[in-house]
Amino acid sequence: MDTMGRHVIAELWGCNVEKLNNMDLIEQVFVDAALKAGAEVREVAFHKFAPHGVSGVVIISESHLTIHSFPEHGYASIDVYTCGDLDPHLASNYIAQELHSTSSEVIEVPRGMGPVQPKKVAVEANQT
Amino acid sequence: MDTMGRHVIAELWGCNVEKLNNMDLIEQVFVDAALKAGAEVREVAFHKFAPHGVSGVVIISESHLTIHSFPEHGYASIDVYTCGDLDPHLASNYIAQELHSTSSEVIEVPRGMGPVQPKKVAVEANQT
Repeated sequence: MDTMGRHVIAELWGCNVEKLNNMDLIEQVFVDAALKAGAEVREVAFHKFAPHGVSGVVIISESHLTIHSFPEHGYASIDVYTCGDLDPHLASNYIAQELHSTSSEVIEVPRGMGPVQPKKVAVEANQT
Repeated sequence: MDTMGRHVIAELWGCNVEKLNNMDLIEQVFVDAALKAGAEVREVAFHKFAPHGVSGVVIISESHLTIHSFPEHGYASIDVYTCGDLDPHLASNYIAQELHSTSSEVIEVPRGMGPVQPKKVAVEANQT
């Protein structure tokens, strides 16, 4: 496998609070997001915190997707890291949509290429 | 929980090839790294690929640690993301040491604060 990877860091704000606290829904959204990007799912591990919040990961053949949700702030911290020809934004955009995020900030970090040079992809404030 | 997180991205080169292909060893190193940083381990999921390479995650109460190893390139792609008062570098430095990395590049990305402003932490070429 090529070491070259694309790592999308997405800060999602203004998300639906109930969705951010629903572990089963988030797990399904993440598996679907991986599949939509054309990834092969290998391992799935999610954890629900008390009193609120969900953390989880989907390990794919092409790297991983992770989430940490903070329902109390309407915030979800998302990483989508892919190798090969996949487009991680297909997954991160789907996740933002499914969590009803109203504003987001996204950067992309090339991985496995030597010097790390993050670039800002988008800052969006969406009307819903 | 505060949304503020510290996300360390570490590109480790010149690692020991056998270690990069040893899933059990990597899993133990990652759990130990989490504990050394003072984290509470919640979920552990690792996967070994054919013919080589290991991917894995440790979900901690304070976020996560992940690895994707590429033994054929002596390269390990590491993320250590912590919330609260933990220092993610305690974990990433331990991992670099245990994988016998000879050169590394590390950036830190503040999470959950609004604008994403990565900063370069260190570029090191170690003599071993």
